[in-house]
Amino acid sequence: MSENPYNIGLDRNSANHQPLTPLTFLERAATVFPDHIAIIHGALRRNYAEFYSRSRQLASALAGRSIGRGDTVSVMLANTPAMLECHYGVPMCGAVLHSINTRLDASIIAFQLDHAMSKIVIVDREFMPLMQEALALATVKPALIQYDDPEYDGPDIPEKALDYEVFLSGGDPDFAWLMPDDEWDAISINYTSGTTGNPKGVVSHHRGAYLLAQGNALTASMQKHAVYLWTLPMFHCNGWCFPWTMSAIIGTHVCLRQVRAEPIWNALADHNVTHLCGAPIVMSLMISAAPEAKRELDQEVHFFTAAAPPPETLLADMKTAGFDVTHLYGLTETYGPAVVNDWHDSWSDLPSSEQAALKSRQGVRYLPLEGLDVLDPITMTQVPRDGKTMGEVMFRGNVVMKGYFRNPTATQEAFSGGWFHSGDLGVMHPDGYIQLKDRSKDVIISGGENISSIEVEEALYRHPAVEVAAVVAMPHEKWGETPCAFIELSAGHHADVKELQDWCRDHLAHYKVPGRFIFTSIPRTSTGKIQKFVLREQAKEIGS
Amino acid sequence: MSENPYNIGLDRNSANHQPLTPLTFLERAATVFPDHIAIIHGALRRNYAEFYSRSRQLASALAGRSIGRGDTVSVMLANTPAMLECHYGVPMCGAVLHSINTRLDASIIAFQLDHAMSKIVIVDREFMPLMQEALALATVKPALIQYDDPEYDGPDIPEKALDYEVFLSGGDPDFAWLMPDDEWDAISINYTSGTTGNPKGVVSHHRGAYLLAQGNALTASMQKHAVYLWTLPMFHCNGWCFPWTMSAIIGTHVCLRQVRAEPIWNALADHNVTHLCGAPIVMSLMISAAPEAKRELDQEVHFFTAAAPPPETLLADMKTAGFDVTHLYGLTETYGPAVVNDWHDSWSDLPSSEQAALKSRQGVRYLPLEGLDVLDPITMTQVPRDGKTMGEVMFRGNVVMKGYFRNPTATQEAFSGGWFHSGDLGVMHPDGYIQLKDRSKDVIISGGENISSIEVEEALYRHPAVEVAAVVAMPHEKWGETPCAFIELSAGHHADVKELQDWCRDHLAHYKVPGRFIFTSIPRTSTGKIQKFVLREQAKEIGS
Repeated sequence: MSENPYNIGLDRNSANHQPLTPLTFLERAATVFPDHIAIIHGALRRNYAEFYSRSRQLASALAGRSIGRGDTVSVMLANTPAMLECHYGVPMCGAVLHSINTRLDASIIAFQLDHAMSKIVIVDREFMPLMQEALALATVKPALIQYDDPEYDGPDIPEKALDYEVFLSGGDPDFAWLMPDDEWDAISINYTSGTTGNPKGVVSHHRGAYLLAQGNALTASMQKHAVYLWTLPMFHCNGWCFPWTMSAIIGTHVCLRQVRAEPIWNALADHNVTHLCGAPIVMSLMISAAPEAKRELDQEVHFFTAAAPPPETLLADMKTAGFDVTHLYGLTETYGPAVVNDWHDSWSDLPSSEQAALKSRQGVRYLPLEGLDVLDPITMTQVPRDGKTMGEVMFRGNVVMKGYFRNPTATQEAFSGGWFHSGDLGVMHPDGYIQLKDRSKDVIISGGENISSIEVEEALYRHPAVEVAAVVAMPHEKWGETPCAFIELSAGHHADVKELQDWCRDHLAHYKVPGRFIFTSIPRTSTGKIQKFVLREQAKEIGS
Repeated sequence: MSENPYNIGLDRNSANHQPLTPLTFLERAATVFPDHIAIIHGALRRNYAEFYSRSRQLASALAGRSIGRGDTVSVMLANTPAMLECHYGVPMCGAVLHSINTRLDASIIAFQLDHAMSKIVIVDREFMPLMQEALALATVKPALIQYDDPEYDGPDIPEKALDYEVFLSGGDPDFAWLMPDDEWDAISINYTSGTTGNPKGVVSHHRGAYLLAQGNALTASMQKHAVYLWTLPMFHCNGWCFPWTMSAIIGTHVCLRQVRAEPIWNALADHNVTHLCGAPIVMSLMISAAPEAKRELDQEVHFFTAAAPPPETLLADMKTAGFDVTHLYGLTETYGPAVVNDWHDSWSDLPSSEQAALKSRQGVRYLPLEGLDVLDPITMTQVPRDGKTMGEVMFRGNVVMKGYFRNPTATQEAFSGGWFHSGDLGVMHPDGYIQLKDRSKDVIISGGENISSIEVEEALYRHPAVEVAAVVAMPHEKWGETPCAFIELSAGHHADVKELQDWCRDHLAHYKVPGRFIFTSIPRTSTGKIQKFVLREQAKEIGS
C-alpha cells in the first residue's frame, strides 16, 4: 500500500502545532480584557492584567528557587486568590501543582509530601500549625511559604515562614513563562482520599485540563463574563478545572473561605453570581438558611452538584428559589466532572418525583470524554441496557488521568482492558444514561445476594422523617453480611427503629431490610461526601 | 539531569488518549439526544439519530467502493442535508472531504479534481452540467454520484449518474466508522481561490477541526440547542467548521439553497434561528429587503460577519432590526474564523460612529489559536502597537492548516520563520486588536509611498451616496501607481466624479486621492468578496 499522500510534507511545526494548555487562557484574558475583574475576595478586586502578572511573578519566584519541570509544588490553601494564582503560576514555571485537602490529618499530609517529593509548600496561615505537624513527620524538607489572607480572622501564629507576598515580590511580573514541552506533561497531582491503603497520586496533564476546562463551559452553556462562586474546594480535583474555565470565558471568580449560608447568599446577590458547584449538602445549607440570611436574586443561578444524587424535595426547593440544578459525576481520575445529567427539555413537564428520579441519574459523557460505559469487569463486555443489571462504570478518553504517580501497579490495574475502572457500580438505562448503584466496596453481600446500599438508602430517604441515610455492610453470623443503616432525622420529625423497619419492609425485599438502625450524626469528608469507611468500622464493631 | 518523574510509567494508552476529532460530537449528539431535530430543509426534518445513521451509511457505502484513508472525496453541493452528511460520512471512512466552490469554472474544477486525485464525486443536480464539463477536462476519472435535492426546482437533466439515495441505501447504518489513526490526519482539503497561479489545496486535520468547532461555540457563547441558518456556503472553509460546532451543542441546522432575503427572513422567524454567518453583503440583502418580505422576530439573532468590515449604517440598521453583529476574520488556512472582534461591554455606550470604527477592527485570537501578531515579514519582529505601522498579519497555533497539498514550496514559504504568513497587511492597535489594511498585493505604491486601498475605500464609504467602493492600483506614468476607485451608488442617491474627488481631497492626503472614479457594478466572488483581481485588470487597461 502506498503512503497516505496527506501525510507527506505536512508535518507539525511551530506555526501549526502548540501543546494544548489552559495557561494560554489566562494569557488571552489578560491581553484582551486586562481591566475585567477576574477575582473578588472580600474587599479585594483583581483584574485580569493583575491576575496574569501575579501568576507570572509567582512562576518567576519559583523558578528563582530552581523549581522547574517535574518538580512538585504543594499548596494548602482555602479558596483564596493565592490558590487561583497557584493554578497558573505553578505550571507556568514547569512545575506540578499539588493541592492538599485542608481537612486531612498530619500523617496523611506527610505521606503526600514525601510521596510527591515536594520541593516547596505554600500554606494559608490557618493551616500552618497542621502543616508544621506534617512537616515534622515528613522526610522531605520543602521550603515553606505562608499566605496571610486578610479575610482570615483567626489567631496570629509566631512568624516562622517566608510571607507569600514577599516571595511574590521577588518574582518578575513579565517573566517569560514556560509552555509545557508536550501537552502530555503533568499539570497537577491530586491524592485520592484512600479509604484503604495509602492515598494514590492522580497525575493530570495539560491536554486534559485544557479540554475539561472548555468542556465545563460548553456543558454548562456558560456565557462570556459569567460569575463563579467558590463553594467547591479548589483542592478538590483542582476545583473541577473551573480555575481554568473562567479564564476561557473571561469570567469572574468570587472567592469564599468558608461554606456558610449567609456569605453564600450575600455573594450571590452582591456579585450577580451565575454559577456555583457543590455537593447536595451545600444546597441544603443554602435552602435551610434562616429567612433573614437569604437574599433576593435578580439572576438565574446555575448549581452544579455531584457526590450524591440530589433528593427530590431539595430539587423542588432549589427550583422555587430560582436555581437551575445540574447533576454531574466524575472522579479525581477524570479531572472532576466528566459525566453530566444532560437534561431534556421535555422532562421538565413531568411530575416532580419523576424529574427527581431522572435527575438522580449520573448521565452521559462530557463532550471531551470519548467513552463512558457500564461493563462487566471480568469479561469487559457491556451489561444489558436495562437500568437493572449492575456493572462497573468505566471511562475512556482525553480527560482520563495520566496514571498514578510512582505506582505502576495501581496504574496498570486501573487501566486494564483499555478502560479506566472507576470502582463505581452502576446500571445503564435504555436511553444510554448511567446511574450509580454503589462503590464496588460498598456492595453488601447477604447470603450470596448483592444488596445495593444506595437502593436501601433511597428507600429510607423517601421516609419523611429521614434527613440523611447511609447504609453499609455489617458482619452477620448467618448471612455473612447484612445492611446497617445510619440515620440523621429531619429537624422537627421523629421516627423510631420499629417505624423505619416497617417502612423498609414495605418498600424493599426483606433480605435488604437493615438489621440495625443507628440514629447519629453522620461523618462527612471536607467535600460533603459521607465517610462510609468510618461507618463501616462502626458497623463492624456493632455486628461482631 | 535526572528524568522527570512525572513522565515515568505514565504513558498514553487507549484508556486515557484518543485522537481529537469532531466526528465524536455527532456520535454523542445521536446517543444523548436522538430525537432532537438536527436538520431542517424545506419540509424535511431529520433528527440526530437519523443524521448519524445516514452519515454512517454514507461512510459504509464509500468504504464499499474501497474509499479509505488518504483518499479524496470531492463534493459539489449547495447548503443541503447531503452536504452536512458529507462532513461526517466522508471522514468516517477515513477519507478527506474536498468541497468545491459551486461558482468556479470547469477548468479550475478540473484542476482541483486532478490535483486532489479525486476518487469519487458527489454532485447536486443543479451543478451536474458544470461537473460533466469539468470531468471532460480532468485526467482523473472519479465515480459520479448525483444528489437530487427536492428543494431544487431547476430543469431535469438526462439521468447519467448513480443517485445519492441509492448509493446511500447500499451502506450499513450501523457501520463501525473509522476514528482517525492520529488527530493530525487530514479531514478536509479546500482550495484557495488562487487569484494568481494555480489554486492551493489547504489541508486541515481532525485536531484543528475539533478545536475550531468548539472555539466557535465558546467565542459566540452559543447555547445548547442553538439554531443555525446556512447563509454561509458550506464549501467555504467547511462552513467555518459550523457543521461540527452544531453537533457539539446539539443544535439545529436550517439549510438554505440560495441566499435571498425572503427565505432568510422566513427561516429566521419560522425556525427561531439564533445564529447565522455571512459577508456584509448578506446583511445588506436582509436589511434592504422589501418591508413585506421582512418578519417580526421574537428572539435575538447573532450574525457573524467576515470578509469585509461592516459599514456603520449597516451596523446601525442591524441593531435596530434586533441583530447582534460580531466581526470575525480568518482564512481557509485557519479553518475559517480564527480572529474575533471580542466586544467590550463599555464600547456599547460610545457614539455609533466610534462603535463602527471599533467593530471594523478584526480583533484578537480565537481561544484555540495560540498566537496572532502583526510582524515585519523581513525581520519577523513585531511592528509598534500604534495602530499605524503596517506589517503582515501572522498566525501560530492549533487551528493553522497542516500545509498545502502536494506543494512543499508553498507550504515552506507560508510557514517560514515559524509563523503562518497570511498575506494580509494590517496594524496592531495599542490594545492588542489587529486591523487589516490590505492584502499585500492590494497595496498601491505611488511615488514610493504605500497607499492602503482600504483607507481610500473607508473615506469613500463615508460619503452618503456610496453603497460599495473598491480601490485598486492603476498604472501611472509619473508615480508608478495611483488609486483607481470603482463605485456602486446607493439607490436613490447621486454623485459625480467631481463630487467624490472633492470629498476625497477633504478626507485624504492628496497623493491618496484616486486618479479615476468608475461607476459600475462591482464583481464579487460566491462568498461575497470583491474580486479585486478583476478590477485590477480593468484598471490596468484604463491606465495604460
